[in-house]
Amino acid sequence: MSSHHIVRDDQEPALIIANGAACQSELLGQLLEWSPLVVVLDSAIERVMELDIKVDILLGDFDRNFNPELYKTKQFPIEIIHTPDQDKTDLEKAFDYLISRNITAVNVVWATGKRADHTITNITNIIRYRDTLKIVILDDHSKIFLLPKKFEKWYPANTPISLIPIGHVTGIQSTNLFYPLQGDSLTLGLRTGSSNYVAQDGIVSIEHNEGDLLLMECVD
Amino acid sequence: MSSHHIVRDDQEPALIIANGAACQSELLGQLLEWSPLVVVLDSAIERVMELDIKVDILLGDFDRNFNPELYKTKQFPIEIIHTPDQDKTDLEKAFDYLISRNITAVNVVWATGKRADHTITNITNIIRYRDTLKIVILDDHSKIFLLPKKFEKWYPANTPISLIPIGHVTGIQSTNLFYPLQGDSLTLGLRTGSSNYVAQDGIVSIEHNEGDLLLMECVD
Repeated sequence: MSSHHIVRDDQEPALIIANGAACQSELLGQLLEWSPLVVVLDSAIERVMELDIKVDILLGDFDRNFNPELYKTKQFPIEIIHTPDQDKTDLEKAFDYLISRNITAVNVVWATGKRADHTITNITNIIRYRDTLKIVILDDHSKIFLLPKKFEKWYPANTPISLIPIGHVTGIQSTNLFYPLQGDSLTLGLRTGSSNYVAQDGIVSIEHNEGDLLLMECVD
Repeated sequence: MSSHHIVRDDQEPALIIANGAACQSELLGQLLEWSPLVVVLDSAIERVMELDIKVDILLGDFDRNFNPELYKTKQFPIEIIHTPDQDKTDLEKAFDYLISRNITAVNVVWATGKRADHTITNITNIIRYRDTLKIVILDDHSKIFLLPKKFEKWYPANTPISLIPIGHVTGIQSTNLFYPLQGDSLTLGLRTGSSNYVAQDGIVSIEHNEGDLLLMECVD
Protein backbone atom coordinates (compact mmCIF):
# COMPACT_ATOMS: atom_id res chain seq x y z
CA MET A 1 0.00 0.00 0.00
CA SER A 2 1.52 3.32 -1.02
CA SER A 3 1.90 5.87 1.72
CA HIS A 4 1.38 9.58 1.28
CA HIS A 5 2.99 10.36 4.61
CA ILE A 6 6.08 12.04 3.24
CA VAL A 7 5.41 15.43 4.78
CA ARG A 8 3.21 15.57 7.86
CA ASP A 9 2.74 19.29 7.93
CA ASP A 10 -0.70 20.81 8.27
CA GLN A 11 0.50 23.82 6.30
CA GLU A 12 -0.03 21.75 3.15
CA PRO A 13 -3.66 21.43 2.02
CA ALA A 14 -5.62 18.41 3.19
CA LEU A 15 -7.20 16.20 0.52
CA ILE A 16 -10.85 15.16 0.39
CA ILE A 17 -11.82 12.29 -1.89
CA ALA A 18 -15.56 12.72 -2.46
CA ASN A 19 -18.05 10.34 -4.06
CA GLY A 20 -18.42 11.51 -7.69
CA ALA A 21 -16.51 10.38 -10.76
CA ALA A 22 -12.94 9.24 -10.19
CA CYS A 23 -10.12 11.31 -11.68
CA GLN A 24 -7.07 9.96 -13.43
CA SER A 25 -4.59 8.28 -11.10
CA GLU A 26 -1.87 10.74 -12.12
CA LEU A 27 -3.79 13.71 -10.70
CA LEU A 28 -4.68 11.79 -7.55
CA GLY A 29 -1.08 10.67 -7.12
CA GLN A 30 0.25 14.23 -7.34
CA LEU A 31 -2.20 15.44 -4.73
CA LEU A 32 -1.58 12.51 -2.36
CA GLU A 33 2.14 13.19 -2.41
CA TRP A 34 1.68 16.55 -0.72
CA SER A 35 -1.40 16.00 1.43
CA PRO A 36 -0.74 15.55 5.15
CA LEU A 37 -4.31 14.42 5.77
CA VAL A 38 -6.56 12.37 3.50
CA VAL A 39 -10.30 12.30 4.12
CA VAL A 40 -12.58 9.94 2.19
CA LEU A 41 -16.34 10.40 2.03
CA ASP A 42 -18.62 7.49 2.80
CA SER A 43 -18.77 4.59 0.34
CA ALA A 44 -16.08 6.15 -1.86
CA ILE A 45 -13.75 4.19 0.43
CA GLU A 46 -14.69 1.08 -1.53
CA ARG A 47 -13.27 2.58 -4.72
CA VAL A 48 -10.30 4.08 -2.86
CA MET A 49 -9.36 0.65 -1.47
CA GLU A 50 -9.03 -0.67 -5.00
CA LEU A 51 -6.40 2.01 -5.64
CA ASP A 52 -4.28 0.91 -2.68
CA ILE A 53 -4.25 4.31 -0.99
CA LYS A 54 -3.73 4.91 2.74
CA VAL A 55 -6.46 7.07 4.23
CA ASP A 56 -6.54 8.99 7.52
CA ILE A 57 -10.22 9.67 7.96
CA LEU A 58 -13.44 8.08 6.75
CA LEU A 59 -16.42 10.40 7.15
CA GLY A 60 -20.07 10.01 6.22
CA ASP A 61 -23.61 9.22 7.26
CA PHE A 62 -23.05 5.56 6.22
CA ASP A 63 -26.75 5.18 5.48
CA ARG A 64 -26.78 2.67 2.63
CA ASN A 65 -26.11 -0.66 4.29
CA PHE A 66 -22.51 0.32 4.46
CA ASN A 67 -20.34 -0.85 7.34
CA PRO A 68 -17.38 1.47 7.97
CA GLU A 69 -16.02 -0.76 10.76
CA LEU A 70 -14.68 -3.05 8.05
CA TYR A 71 -12.01 -0.47 7.30
CA LYS A 72 -10.71 -0.18 10.87
CA THR A 73 -8.36 -3.06 10.22
CA LYS A 74 -7.91 -2.71 6.47
CA GLN A 75 -6.84 0.93 6.86
CA PHE A 76 -5.37 0.80 10.40
CA PRO A 77 -4.88 3.39 11.84
CA ILE A 78 -7.95 5.26 10.58
CA GLU A 79 -10.37 7.63 12.25
CA ILE A 80 -14.04 6.95 11.45
CA ILE A 81 -16.38 9.90 11.84
CA HIS A 82 -20.11 9.27 11.69
CA THR A 83 -22.02 12.41 10.59
CA PRO A 84 -25.74 11.64 10.40
CA ASP A 85 -26.90 15.28 9.92
CA GLN A 86 -29.24 15.23 6.88
CA ASP A 87 -29.14 19.01 6.41
CA LYS A 88 -25.60 18.96 5.08
CA THR A 89 -23.83 17.03 2.37
CA ASP A 90 -20.95 14.77 3.33
CA LEU A 91 -18.62 17.23 1.60
CA GLU A 92 -19.83 20.11 3.77
CA LYS A 93 -19.42 17.97 6.87
CA ALA A 94 -15.85 17.22 5.81
CA PHE A 95 -15.18 20.95 5.36
CA ASP A 96 -16.62 21.61 8.83
CA TYR A 97 -14.45 18.87 10.30
CA LEU A 98 -11.27 20.33 8.76
CA ILE A 99 -12.16 23.78 10.09
CA SER A 100 -12.67 22.28 13.56
CA ARG A 101 -9.09 20.99 13.31
CA ASN A 102 -7.80 24.46 12.32
CA ILE A 103 -6.85 23.27 8.86
CA THR A 104 -6.98 26.22 6.48
CA ALA A 105 -6.72 24.72 2.98
CA VAL A 106 -8.05 21.67 1.15
CA ASN A 107 -8.01 20.14 -2.30
CA VAL A 108 -11.07 18.13 -3.32
CA VAL A 109 -11.24 15.40 -5.96
CA TRP A 110 -14.08 13.14 -7.16
CA ALA A 111 -16.57 15.95 -6.36
CA THR A 112 -17.79 16.33 -9.96
CA GLY A 113 -19.10 14.03 -12.68
CA LYS A 114 -21.87 11.47 -12.33
CA ARG A 115 -24.98 13.10 -10.75
CA ALA A 116 -25.49 16.71 -11.92
CA ASP A 117 -27.23 17.69 -8.66
CA HIS A 118 -24.18 16.65 -6.63
CA THR A 119 -21.79 18.31 -9.08
CA ILE A 120 -23.55 21.68 -9.04
CA THR A 121 -24.12 21.57 -5.26
CA ASN A 122 -20.49 20.67 -4.53
CA ILE A 123 -19.12 23.39 -6.80
CA THR A 124 -21.41 26.17 -5.61
CA ASN A 125 -21.36 25.34 -1.88
CA ILE A 126 -17.71 26.37 -1.60
CA ILE A 127 -18.82 30.00 -1.45
CA ARG A 128 -20.02 29.41 2.14
CA TYR A 129 -16.45 28.82 3.22
CA ARG A 130 -15.02 32.09 1.85
CA ASP A 131 -13.69 33.19 5.26
CA THR A 132 -12.86 29.85 6.81
CA LEU A 133 -11.27 27.43 4.31
CA LYS A 134 -9.33 27.78 1.06
CA ILE A 135 -10.96 25.16 -1.19
CA VAL A 136 -9.82 23.97 -4.61
CA ILE A 137 -11.94 21.44 -6.53
CA LEU A 138 -10.04 19.48 -9.17
CA ASP A 139 -10.96 16.95 -11.84
CA ASP A 140 -9.35 15.80 -15.07
CA HIS A 141 -10.61 18.84 -16.96
CA SER A 142 -11.04 21.55 -14.32
CA LYS A 143 -9.51 23.43 -11.40
CA ILE A 144 -12.09 25.51 -9.52
CA PHE A 145 -11.75 28.03 -6.71
CA LEU A 146 -13.47 31.08 -5.24
CA LEU A 147 -11.86 34.42 -6.06
CA PRO A 148 -10.96 36.92 -3.35
CA LYS A 149 -12.05 40.52 -4.03
CA LYS A 150 -8.64 41.10 -5.59
CA PHE A 151 -6.89 38.22 -7.36
CA GLU A 152 -3.55 38.11 -9.15
CA LYS A 153 -1.74 35.13 -10.68
CA TRP A 154 0.81 34.52 -13.41
CA TYR A 155 -0.48 32.50 -16.36
CA PRO A 156 0.94 31.52 -19.75
CA ALA A 157 -0.73 33.09 -22.79
CA ASN A 158 -3.89 31.35 -24.03
CA THR A 159 -4.67 29.62 -20.71
CA PRO A 160 -8.48 29.18 -20.65
CA ILE A 161 -10.04 31.15 -17.79
CA SER A 162 -13.77 30.99 -17.05
CA LEU A 163 -15.41 33.33 -14.55
CA ILE A 164 -18.61 31.82 -13.17
CA PRO A 165 -20.75 33.98 -10.86
CA ILE A 166 -22.73 32.11 -8.21
CA GLY A 167 -25.71 34.42 -8.30
CA HIS A 168 -24.93 38.03 -9.21
CA VAL A 169 -21.45 39.61 -9.15
CA THR A 170 -20.80 43.32 -9.72
CA GLY A 171 -17.90 45.59 -10.65
CA ILE A 172 -15.62 43.03 -12.28
CA GLN A 173 -12.35 44.46 -13.61
CA SER A 174 -9.74 42.33 -15.35
CA THR A 175 -6.34 42.84 -16.90
CA ASN A 176 -4.60 40.53 -19.36
CA LEU A 177 -7.72 38.58 -20.37
CA PHE A 178 -8.57 38.31 -24.07
CA TYR A 179 -12.13 39.52 -23.42
CA PRO A 180 -11.53 42.20 -20.76
CA LEU A 181 -14.08 42.95 -18.07
CA GLN A 182 -14.39 46.63 -17.28
CA GLY A 183 -16.66 47.10 -14.33
CA ASP A 184 -19.02 44.47 -15.73
CA SER A 185 -21.65 42.50 -13.82
CA LEU A 186 -22.19 38.78 -14.36
CA THR A 187 -25.24 36.71 -13.40
CA LEU A 188 -25.39 32.93 -13.45
CA GLY A 189 -27.72 31.69 -16.17
CA LEU A 190 -27.95 35.10 -17.80
CA ARG A 191 -24.43 36.35 -18.39
CA THR A 192 -21.29 34.47 -17.39
CA GLY A 193 -17.64 34.91 -18.31
CA SER A 194 -17.10 31.39 -19.56
CA SER A 195 -14.40 30.58 -22.12
CA ASN A 196 -12.21 33.63 -21.72
CA TYR A 197 -8.43 33.19 -21.93
CA VAL A 198 -5.15 34.81 -21.01
CA ALA A 199 -3.96 37.43 -23.54
CA GLN A 200 -0.19 37.11 -23.00
CA ASP A 201 2.33 35.49 -20.64
CA GLY A 202 2.09 37.40 -17.38
CA ILE A 203 0.01 38.43 -14.42
CA VAL A 204 -3.79 38.21 -14.76
CA SER A 205 -5.65 40.40 -12.29
CA ILE A 206 -9.35 40.12 -11.54
CA GLU A 207 -11.18 42.34 -9.06
CA HIS A 208 -14.85 42.48 -8.16
CA ASN A 209 -17.06 44.42 -5.79
CA GLU A 210 -19.98 42.29 -4.58
CA GLY A 211 -20.93 38.64 -4.94
CA ASP A 212 -19.28 35.25 -5.27
CA LEU A 213 -17.14 34.67 -8.34
CA LEU A 214 -15.57 31.31 -9.17
CA LEU A 215 -12.52 30.98 -11.37
CA MET A 216 -12.32 27.79 -13.42
CA GLU A 217 -9.16 26.76 -15.24
CA CYS A 218 -10.49 24.15 -17.67
CA VAL A 219 -9.09 22.15 -20.58
CA ASP A 220 -10.82 19.89 -23.10
CA MET B 1 -25.93 3.64 -40.89
CA SER B 2 -28.95 3.55 -38.64
CA SER B 3 -31.69 6.01 -39.45
CA HIS B 4 -33.77 7.84 -36.89
CA HIS B 5 -36.27 8.99 -39.50
CA ILE B 6 -39.16 6.90 -38.27
CA VAL B 7 -41.44 9.76 -37.38
CA ARG B 8 -40.86 13.07 -39.09
CA ASP B 9 -43.09 15.14 -36.92
CA ASP B 10 -41.90 18.39 -35.39
CA GLN B 11 -44.24 17.80 -32.46
CA GLU B 12 -41.62 15.45 -31.04
CA PRO B 13 -38.64 17.16 -29.39
CA ALA B 14 -35.56 17.79 -31.49
CA LEU B 15 -32.26 16.35 -30.24
CA ILE B 16 -29.04 18.30 -29.75
CA ILE B 17 -25.80 16.36 -29.34
CA ALA B 18 -23.42 18.81 -27.66
CA ASN B 19 -19.67 18.53 -27.10
CA GLY B 20 -19.25 17.27 -23.49
CA ALA B 21 -18.95 13.71 -22.25
CA ALA B 22 -20.75 11.04 -24.29
CA CYS B 23 -23.68 9.23 -22.72
CA GLN B 24 -24.35 5.51 -22.91
CA SER B 25 -25.49 4.36 -26.32
CA GLU B 26 -28.76 3.04 -24.88
CA LEU B 27 -29.88 6.54 -23.79
CA LEU B 28 -28.79 8.04 -27.10
CA GLY B 29 -30.58 5.31 -29.03
CA GLN B 30 -33.86 5.88 -27.18
CA LEU B 31 -33.74 9.61 -27.89
CA LEU B 32 -32.77 9.17 -31.55
CA GLU B 33 -35.74 6.90 -32.13
CA TRP B 34 -38.18 9.72 -31.42
CA SER B 35 -36.28 12.78 -32.60
CA PRO B 36 -37.41 14.23 -35.93
CA LEU B 37 -34.40 16.55 -36.12
CA VAL B 38 -30.87 15.83 -34.89
CA VAL B 39 -28.45 18.73 -34.41
CA VAL B 40 -24.78 18.11 -33.64
CA LEU B 41 -22.51 20.81 -32.26
CA ASP B 42 -19.17 21.48 -33.89
CA SER B 43 -16.42 18.88 -33.59
CA ALA B 44 -18.73 16.49 -31.69
CA ILE B 45 -19.57 15.31 -35.21
CA GLU B 46 -16.28 13.40 -35.22
CA ARG B 47 -17.42 11.30 -32.24
CA VAL B 48 -20.96 11.00 -33.63
CA MET B 49 -19.63 9.59 -36.91
CA GLU B 50 -17.99 6.75 -35.00
CA LEU B 51 -21.44 5.82 -33.68
CA ASP B 52 -22.91 5.54 -37.16
CA ILE B 53 -25.72 8.03 -36.56
CA LYS B 54 -27.48 10.05 -39.28
CA VAL B 55 -27.49 13.76 -38.49
CA ASP B 56 -29.63 16.56 -39.95
CA ILE B 57 -27.73 19.65 -38.92
CA LEU B 58 -24.13 20.42 -38.03
CA LEU B 59 -23.81 23.77 -36.24
CA GLY B 60 -20.82 25.58 -34.76
CA ASP B 61 -18.16 28.22 -35.09
CA PHE B 62 -15.75 25.60 -36.50
CA ASP B 63 -12.79 27.54 -35.17
CA ARG B 64 -10.29 24.79 -34.38
CA ASN B 65 -8.89 23.76 -37.73
CA PHE B 66 -12.06 21.81 -38.26
CA ASN B 67 -13.50 21.42 -41.74
CA PRO B 68 -17.28 20.81 -41.67
CA GLU B 69 -17.41 20.43 -45.47
CA LEU B 70 -16.03 16.92 -45.04
CA TYR B 71 -19.42 15.86 -43.68
CA LYS B 72 -21.45 17.11 -46.67
CA THR B 73 -20.88 13.82 -48.42
CA LYS B 74 -20.42 11.57 -45.40
CA GLN B 75 -23.74 12.71 -43.94
CA PHE B 76 -25.61 13.64 -47.15
CA PRO B 77 -28.09 15.31 -46.94
CA ILE B 78 -26.96 17.55 -44.08
CA GLU B 79 -27.39 21.24 -43.39
CA ILE B 80 -24.22 22.98 -42.18
CA ILE B 81 -24.75 26.17 -40.17
CA HIS B 82 -21.76 28.36 -39.43
CA THR B 83 -22.31 30.48 -36.30
CA PRO B 84 -19.23 32.58 -35.60
CA ASP B 85 -20.80 34.77 -32.84
CA GLN B 86 -18.36 34.64 -29.89
CA ASP B 87 -20.90 36.03 -27.41
CA LYS B 88 -22.92 32.81 -27.35
CA THR B 89 -22.07 29.17 -26.79
CA ASP B 90 -22.72 26.70 -29.57
CA LEU B 91 -25.52 25.26 -27.46
CA GLU B 92 -27.27 28.64 -27.18
CA LYS B 93 -26.90 29.12 -30.93
CA ALA B 94 -28.53 25.73 -31.48
CA PHE B 95 -31.42 26.72 -29.19
CA ASP B 96 -31.81 29.99 -31.14
CA TYR B 97 -31.78 28.06 -34.40
CA LEU B 98 -34.53 25.69 -33.24
CA ILE B 99 -36.66 28.63 -32.09
CA SER B 100 -36.22 30.25 -35.51
CA ARG B 101 -37.69 27.07 -37.00
CA ASN B 102 -40.66 27.20 -34.61
CA ILE B 103 -39.56 24.05 -32.83
CA THR B 104 -40.86 24.14 -29.27
CA ALA B 105 -39.07 21.30 -27.46
CA VAL B 106 -35.60 19.78 -27.40
CA ASN B 107 -33.66 17.10 -25.59
CA VAL B 108 -29.94 17.72 -25.11
CA VAL B 109 -27.24 15.09 -24.55
CA TRP B 110 -23.45 15.32 -24.14
CA ALA B 111 -23.90 18.77 -22.52
CA THR B 112 -22.38 17.75 -19.18
CA GLY B 113 -19.19 16.07 -17.99
CA LYS B 114 -15.66 16.97 -18.98
CA ARG B 115 -15.09 20.75 -18.45
CA ALA B 116 -16.90 22.09 -15.36
CA ASP B 117 -17.26 25.58 -16.90
CA HIS B 118 -19.15 24.16 -19.87
CA THR B 119 -21.26 21.89 -17.65
CA ILE B 120 -22.39 24.67 -15.31
CA THR B 121 -22.93 27.13 -18.16
CA ASN B 122 -24.97 24.65 -20.21
CA ILE B 123 -27.16 23.66 -17.27
CA THR B 124 -27.83 27.19 -16.02
CA ASN B 125 -28.30 28.87 -19.40
CA ILE B 126 -31.54 27.01 -20.03
CA ILE B 127 -33.32 29.52 -17.78
CA ARG B 128 -33.07 32.10 -20.59
CA TYR B 129 -35.39 29.99 -22.72
CA ARG B 130 -38.22 29.73 -20.19
CA ASP B 131 -40.78 31.25 -22.58
CA THR B 132 -39.47 30.01 -25.90
CA LEU B 133 -38.22 26.43 -25.74
CA LYS B 134 -38.90 23.40 -23.55
CA ILE B 135 -35.41 22.06 -22.82
CA VAL B 136 -34.44 18.79 -21.13
CA ILE B 137 -30.76 18.00 -20.49
CA LEU B 138 -29.98 14.32 -20.06
CA ASP B 139 -26.93 12.28 -19.16
CA ASP B 140 -26.36 8.81 -17.70
CA HIS B 141 -27.09 10.02 -14.17
CA SER B 142 -29.37 13.03 -14.61
CA LYS B 143 -32.46 14.51 -16.22
CA ILE B 144 -32.64 18.29 -15.82
CA PHE B 145 -35.36 20.79 -16.68
CA LEU B 146 -36.68 24.20 -15.63
CA LEU B 147 -39.84 24.17 -13.54
CA PRO B 148 -42.88 26.21 -14.48
CA LYS B 149 -44.42 28.23 -11.63
CA LYS B 150 -46.72 25.27 -11.00
CA PHE B 151 -45.45 21.75 -11.69
CA GLU B 152 -47.16 18.40 -11.27
CA LYS B 153 -45.92 14.93 -12.23
CA TRP B 154 -46.50 11.35 -11.13
CA TYR B 155 -43.47 9.64 -9.63
CA PRO B 156 -42.86 6.30 -7.93
CA ALA B 157 -41.98 6.43 -4.22
CA ASN B 158 -38.32 7.13 -3.39
CA THR B 159 -37.50 8.75 -6.74
CA PRO B 160 -34.63 11.18 -6.02
CA ILE B 161 -35.69 14.77 -6.72
CA SER B 162 -33.26 17.68 -6.40
CA LEU B 163 -34.42 21.29 -6.58
CA ILE B 164 -31.59 23.57 -7.64
CA PRO B 165 -32.25 27.34 -7.67
CA ILE B 166 -30.33 29.33 -10.27
CA GLY B 167 -29.87 32.42 -8.12
CA HIS B 168 -32.63 33.00 -5.58
CA VAL B 169 -36.09 31.35 -5.65
CA THR B 170 -38.92 32.28 -3.28
CA GLY B 171 -42.19 30.81 -2.07
CA ILE B 172 -41.53 27.16 -2.82
CA GLN B 173 -44.38 24.80 -1.85
CA SER B 174 -44.23 21.06 -2.38
CA THR B 175 -46.46 18.08 -1.79
CA ASN B 176 -45.39 14.43 -1.64
CA LEU B 177 -41.67 15.12 -1.12
CA PHE B 178 -39.92 13.49 1.85
CA TYR B 179 -38.52 16.85 2.97
CA PRO B 180 -41.47 19.15 2.24
CA LEU B 181 -40.98 22.78 1.23
CA GLN B 182 -43.51 25.12 2.79
CA GLY B 183 -43.09 28.58 1.37
CA ASP B 184 -39.31 28.21 1.60
CA SER B 185 -36.69 30.18 -0.30
CA LEU B 186 -33.63 28.55 -1.85
CA THR B 187 -30.41 30.25 -2.95
CA LEU B 188 -27.69 28.59 -5.01
CA GLY B 189 -24.52 28.08 -2.97
CA LEU B 190 -26.29 28.88 0.29
CA ARG B 191 -29.38 26.69 0.52
CA THR B 192 -30.48 24.26 -2.18
CA GLY B 193 -32.99 21.42 -2.19
CA SER B 194 -30.61 18.74 -3.34
CA SER B 195 -31.19 15.05 -2.51
CA ASN B 196 -34.89 15.17 -1.67
CA TYR B 197 -37.09 12.27 -2.78
CA VAL B 198 -40.66 11.27 -3.44
CA ALA B 199 -42.59 10.21 -0.31
CA GLN B 200 -45.06 7.80 -1.93
CA ASP B 201 -46.27 6.66 -5.36
CA GLY B 202 -48.30 9.53 -6.77
CA ILE B 203 -48.37 13.12 -7.93
CA VAL B 204 -45.58 15.43 -6.77
CA SER B 205 -46.48 19.10 -6.96
CA ILE B 206 -43.99 21.95 -6.72
CA GLU B 207 -44.93 25.61 -6.91
CA HIS B 208 -42.78 28.71 -6.56
CA ASN B 209 -43.26 32.46 -6.72
CA GLU B 210 -40.16 34.16 -8.11
CA GLY B 211 -36.91 32.95 -9.64
CA ASP B 212 -35.60 30.07 -11.72
CA LEU B 213 -35.83 26.61 -10.22
CA LEU B 214 -34.36 23.52 -11.88
CA LEU B 215 -35.62 20.03 -11.16
CA MET B 216 -33.03 17.27 -11.42
CA GLU B 217 -33.96 13.61 -11.44
CA CYS B 218 -30.62 11.94 -10.66
CA VAL B 219 -29.42 8.43 -9.91
CA ASP B 220 -26.03 7.13 -8.76
